[in-house]
Amino acid sequence: MKRITLLLVAVATLAGVVFFSAPVSGHADQETGPVFVTKIPNGFRDWRLVSVAHEAGNLNDIRAVLGNDTAIKAYRDGQLPFPDGAIIARIAWSYVPSEENNKVFGRAQSFVPGPPTASYLQFMVKDSKKYAATGGWGYAQFDKDGKPADEALLKTCYPCHEPNKGRDYVFTRYTP
Amino acid sequence: MKRITLLLVAVATLAGVVFFSAPVSGHADQETGPVFVTKIPNGFRDWRLVSVAHEAGNLNDIRAVLGNDTAIKAYRDGQLPFPDGAIIARIAWSYVPSEENNKVFGRAQSFVPGPPTASYLQFMVKDSKKYAATGGWGYAQFDKDGKPADEALLKTCYPCHEPNKGRDYVFTRYTP
Repeated sequence: MKRITLLLVAVATLAGVVFFSAPVSGHADQETGPVFVTKIPNGFRDWRLVSVAHEAGNLNDIRAVLGNDTAIKAYRDGQLPFPDGAIIARIAWSYVPSEENNKVFGRAQSFVPGPPTASYLQFMVKDSKKYAATGGWGYAQFDKDGKPADEALLKTCYPCHEPNKGRDYVFTRYTP
Repeated sequence: MKRITLLLVAVATLAGVVFFSAPVSGHADQETGPVFVTKIPNGFRDWRLVSVAHEAGNLNDIRAVLGNDTAIKAYRDGQLPFPDGAIIARIAWSYVPSEENNKVFGRAQSFVPGPPTASYLQFMVKDSKKYAATGGWGYAQFDKDGKPADEALLKTCYPCHEPNKGRDYVFTRYTP
């Protein structure tokens, strides 16, 4: 059973690599380039909260960062690097004033999530072997319809996370 | 060991009730006035995410709203009023720029949670009988040391939530 599972994982992995590599090199070889995550992790909206943030400027979003059990445990234990299997999810909504809240408060103070942004969902999936070329993390981004970002965009993830190498390439700190 | 713990909880609860009722009536009687929640609900930091917000102005916080299983189910099902047993938690941190993020981004765009605010934790606990006088919700607030807010402050919760009667007195909407 375990062998079959491993085989299936291997096939699925290979299939993923072929899909992604095809436009670039026409053959599957994870040594030749970056590998990205192409599937939205199951049940991520039920994961526990890591932290929240507001990104101003062009992003203009309000966001929540969630972690699967492995990620939350590592965060709380202060474990670095994160162990294989850790997944960090980032959900971003447009940053909008809440007219209904402000009406009650009698002043313009409340900002809440509006519709999903163009980069609605992002994930970092830890697999130190599979994603060795990008610090052990596979990156992913999906829009509100579940459509993955193209490879050109995903190639920009790692260089931006790279300065945070000392915290295993992760921006978001756990907020108790 | 378990009995000792239970005894301690019982004593602590009793002390809390006496402490809370003393300034008003000199005795504990939930028929005579508002009843507030005096204990931080167990394990709330592991609850699932309802939504996030930024409150500007005097509050100047960034916040996450979490719900226990009963609350999350009601939110997702669009069930109003919330059933008894639902608990909604609000965690508020001071709203601060992230110098470490901004350094990487090369611009001042990132705002993250700083230290807990004075009203760090708030809870709404649904019990339509016990809290009938305040729309079926018991209100609570605790500072970073777990100290509950005084009764005078907690009396201001319901009047502020009252305009949201059509949504069972709850401000925060679930954000998918």
